[in-house]
Amino acid sequence: MNILIIGAEAAGMSAAAKARRSAPDANITVFEQSNVVSFGACGLPYFVGGFFDEPKFMAERSVEQFKASGIDLRTGHRVESVDTDKQIATVRDFASDTLFEHAYDKLMIATGASVVKPPVPGLELGNVYFVKTMADGLALRTLVEQEHIQDVVVIGAGYIGLEMVEAMHKQGKRVRLIEVGEWALSGSFDSEVSELVHAELEKHGVALHLNERVESLHGEQLVSMVQTNKGEYDADLVVVATGVRPSTGFLKDTDIEMLANGAIVIDEQGRTSLANTYAAGDCATVWHRVRQESVYIPLATTANKLGRLIGENLAGAEKRFHGTLGSAAVKVLDIEAGRTGISEKEAKALGLNYKVVVIRDKNTTNYVPGQDDIQVKLVYDADSKVILGGQLVGGQGAVLRVDTLAAAIHSGMTTEDLGMLDLIYAPPFARTWDALNVAGNVAK
Amino acid sequence: MNILIIGAEAAGMSAAAKARRSAPDANITVFEQSNVVSFGACGLPYFVGGFFDEPKFMAERSVEQFKASGIDLRTGHRVESVDTDKQIATVRDFASDTLFEHAYDKLMIATGASVVKPPVPGLELGNVYFVKTMADGLALRTLVEQEHIQDVVVIGAGYIGLEMVEAMHKQGKRVRLIEVGEWALSGSFDSEVSELVHAELEKHGVALHLNERVESLHGEQLVSMVQTNKGEYDADLVVVATGVRPSTGFLKDTDIEMLANGAIVIDEQGRTSLANTYAAGDCATVWHRVRQESVYIPLATTANKLGRLIGENLAGAEKRFHGTLGSAAVKVLDIEAGRTGISEKEAKALGLNYKVVVIRDKNTTNYVPGQDDIQVKLVYDADSKVILGGQLVGGQGAVLRVDTLAAAIHSGMTTEDLGMLDLIYAPPFARTWDALNVAGNVAK
Repeated sequence: MNILIIGAEAAGMSAAAKARRSAPDANITVFEQSNVVSFGACGLPYFVGGFFDEPKFMAERSVEQFKASGIDLRTGHRVESVDTDKQIATVRDFASDTLFEHAYDKLMIATGASVVKPPVPGLELGNVYFVKTMADGLALRTLVEQEHIQDVVVIGAGYIGLEMVEAMHKQGKRVRLIEVGEWALSGSFDSEVSELVHAELEKHGVALHLNERVESLHGEQLVSMVQTNKGEYDADLVVVATGVRPSTGFLKDTDIEMLANGAIVIDEQGRTSLANTYAAGDCATVWHRVRQESVYIPLATTANKLGRLIGENLAGAEKRFHGTLGSAAVKVLDIEAGRTGISEKEAKALGLNYKVVVIRDKNTTNYVPGQDDIQVKLVYDADSKVILGGQLVGGQGAVLRVDTLAAAIHSGMTTEDLGMLDLIYAPPFARTWDALNVAGNVAK
Repeated sequence: MNILIIGAEAAGMSAAAKARRSAPDANITVFEQSNVVSFGACGLPYFVGGFFDEPKFMAERSVEQFKASGIDLRTGHRVESVDTDKQIATVRDFASDTLFEHAYDKLMIATGASVVKPPVPGLELGNVYFVKTMADGLALRTLVEQEHIQDVVVIGAGYIGLEMVEAMHKQGKRVRLIEVGEWALSGSFDSEVSELVHAELEKHGVALHLNERVESLHGEQLVSMVQTNKGEYDADLVVVATGVRPSTGFLKDTDIEMLANGAIVIDEQGRTSLANTYAAGDCATVWHRVRQESVYIPLATTANKLGRLIGENLAGAEKRFHGTLGSAAVKVLDIEAGRTGISEKEAKALGLNYKVVVIRDKNTTNYVPGQDDIQVKLVYDADSKVILGGQLVGGQGAVLRVDTLAAAIHSGMTTEDLGMLDLIYAPPFARTWDALNVAGNVAK
């Protein structure tokens, strides 16, 4: 059996590794257009911020390790098109600049996503960077270590944008964050959470601009000014973090089912609408356990999980993914924020009959140093009280509590169940009624 | 309606407060033999260790606050006996040293537990302390601040014993810990966890003696030496932390159902075997969700939860407790340990057909400072793979992950469910596959 995997990041290499173990006799080929494999872009802000110095930490395993395990991994190879009837891919080898055909019995598409370039003149200026590739990271790290880089403008207050703000702040820069939406993280969090994030940014001297649209970048060769609909700001460096879109253009001549944004729709087994064809990671949808529909939520966690599962299914299994909850987290300077399930914004958009509760509590007893506020928001079904989503923000331990909510939501627990759930207590970790218990009990 | 509550610690005062809100017309009387109410002994090691200086932090609310809410709370009053047929309690008022009778319609027993005094000659010497009351805490704090107190022997390596070791170490003492069992925390943790606790103690210079029995204490007025079956050790101060037993002696003439140790057996509504009589907290059993039986696991969390639930039931509700998991945690110097559900030792004793998995992973990515080891152990049903228990030990975040296992076990999740559960990821909090996912996936 010939298994072909396109793309060697989290989903593709998880699938390759699992298929290798599950189907010892299969030929497994992976084509990757870059020269980096198994790369996690989530490390980039921490590398740029100087939290660590070794770029290879950002790659889970090396090309050599995969090859040694019996996977025919070819970097510098781009799949240009796929004939899904004949089951043949057309591949360009960059080294020789030649095209060749590669036949497969089973295909997995794991081409990931590319950065969304906003329609802003001036993006081509020097010192304007996206945060996606190892090359971006290396360039940014070199740049931030230069003293004359003082004014940094970050565009986009999503996860990566906020992490880049922290990185730049740690590197001693004057940081300005410009976000077109009403609040930071507006794609996944409700405004109550983000208000605390805003306060944290302002406390650390970050200039925060909400409801503001970048219109153009200016400068001679290098960027020097950012023009928005509200003002002009000095900029020695601009970081653009305005999201990603699925890298699925090479499939334009197939009839594979996609969402409007180009995300390949997959079912709970990771199968696309085409025979013998799977997809996962940032190029594909994922089944949402609460929403009960396919959604586009590109996250490394899901990419790894679906990749592993598809690795088994490529080898003949029929594993089913139990669904994502869109669980995600971010650290912003000294506070943590995390979310799982659906937000109130989503519940409203879905027309659900929901209620919410928001409580403010403490992460530990006052017996120990480091006691801090944490805020819990629950979204739950108004009738059954089944928890549909949760968001935490605050001091240490806010985010890890999201995992408890993830288990609760995955299992269909009600607010009453959560109120009485036997969560641990010891003075350094929680109060006798954990903040999650309190939220469950306060919900009516 | 006359509601009588005996005992004003966690369970009693939780019940009183909730009953007050749920039954506005009821007379609620609470008799408490000491002069301290709503006191949490769990703060004592942190007070003694100098983590905080204000003793009143250890009491959740004051006598005055409870009285102001309309609860007839009388400290310095001990219930000496109860006529359960006539529903009358005989009460001693210490101030006047008089006895009187108090009739009730509904009774809640929340008398807590007393320290177990091991059969060791010399316990009456000076500078020998238990860790139970506010008075113990105040005396110990004064003593540890004296420079001539150098050699401290802690007897018993349970939660309180270990926390006292940390407290004494923080106060700069030479600390020796003597435990009769094979490993620390042997009542609730398996040996794999405790081995890491042992290593942590030794790393910090704590002299650890396992499988060793204290036979006598020696000294003139003040303790100066501890004699065991293996040696003699200098001691300026001895802390005895050898567990507690239910304070239920005053019920000896009733036919209330108890376990052999004196714990009052209650059902899921908090009812004892006697009509109109409830009990909760350290004097009573609790329903165990995994074991499906009444067990004695005295913990502040359960006391609070049962107290609240009984408060509603005293007022006429029929709430049911969904069961404890025995979730508990302890910090020992720089490591955390937590547990939920049943241990392997318990599974074996119960004759279950179980399996275990133990994995060692990291708490965060290597992108951020502070990456540390965490070890996860799962106990699960060999056939269904339903998770029955879990224990974590290691660096920051080990203990809060226990809460996720608690939600998983409460809900009957399998190891496979856990392996694919959508837990959060961001570099400062976890790896893309959280250690819990890894444990779930490794379990076969």
